Amino acid sequence: MGCGTGYMIRPAANVSLPGKRPDLAAFILDARLAADSVAVQSLPLCDLRLMNDARFPWLLLIPRRAGASEIVDLQEADRLMLFEEITFVSIALRTATVCHKLNVAAIGNIVPQLHVHVVARFRQDAVWPQPVWGFGETVAYEEAARDRLVARIRAALPA
Amino acid sequence: MGCGTGYMIRPAANVSLPGKRPDLAAFILDARLAADSVAVQSLPLCDLRLMNDARFPWLLLIPRRAGASEIVDLQEADRLMLFEEITFVSIALRTATVCHKLNVAAIGNIVPQLHVHVVARFRQDAVWPQPVWGFGETVAYEEAARDRLVARIRAALPA
Repeated sequence: MGCGTGYMIRPAANVSLPGKRPDLAAFILDARLAADSVAVQSLPLCDLRLMNDARFPWLLLIPRRAGASEIVDLQEADRLMLFEEITFVSIALRTATVCHKLNVAAIGNIVPQLHVHVVARFRQDAVWPQPVWGFGETVAYEEAARDRLVARIRAALPA
Repeated sequence: MGCGTGYMIRPAANVSLPGKRPDLAAFILDARLAADSVAVQSLPLCDLRLMNDARFPWLLLIPRRAGASEIVDLQEADRLMLFEEITFVSIALRTATVCHKLNVAAIGNIVPQLHVHVVARFRQDAVWPQPVWGFGETVAYEEAARDRLVARIRAALPA
């Protein structure tokens, strides 16, 4: 109580200790997401990555917010920015692939780090009309094909 | 071309004929969505419905916009309203169920009418950690249990 020796030990109410507010801690991309995908672009909020699965053009949006797991737990400005990035990434992916359907999802039952899937689907793709999650086996890209797709997606993103 | 007889026949450029702009045509809930779910509430943009599957508390948000299939094809005001409704419905569902994880998705490979899934997941549920789409068999609710859940969700929605 008062201004005794406790002053330096107890933090003020408005000072966050590291780890107390996840969004102030350092963001580190989940190791499994990193292993399964390649970087496409750094957006204002999210890392945009391409899943290394040649069956579907499949993007991930990963907000750079340490500890985030649910969209609704993002601070409002971040949530609105995520929705905006989902929107323009969806449009860019459709432009780059001329797909039949977009599949957009935040699941996170296996990898808790918040990530949003944006997948370009075709009526003749490997598992249509099933969703991509949990069906069939991943097929790695040939490097040149992957790089061409990444270039097409980058070109379709807003400048 | 002046105000001759053509005046009443040619529509002005800003008048949409029925069927030309999907959002001005009458919205009719898809028959399969209707058969698989029950009404919870009419939100400003969406019909909120509960899937008749007792394995998971599973909501659908269906924008009342005829012909809509992709989130990104909604007019901007509708898209922002959909994101807002997804947010408060997600929070209400978590409040009503105290679930471990929210799964949110717009897929639509089978039913093209735009609908967004918001599913409450538990680490001990029937197909965890798989997504709900395409795994296992639907289990219909007992009516009383379904009505109790619908009442809890309604109570958790903003007034």
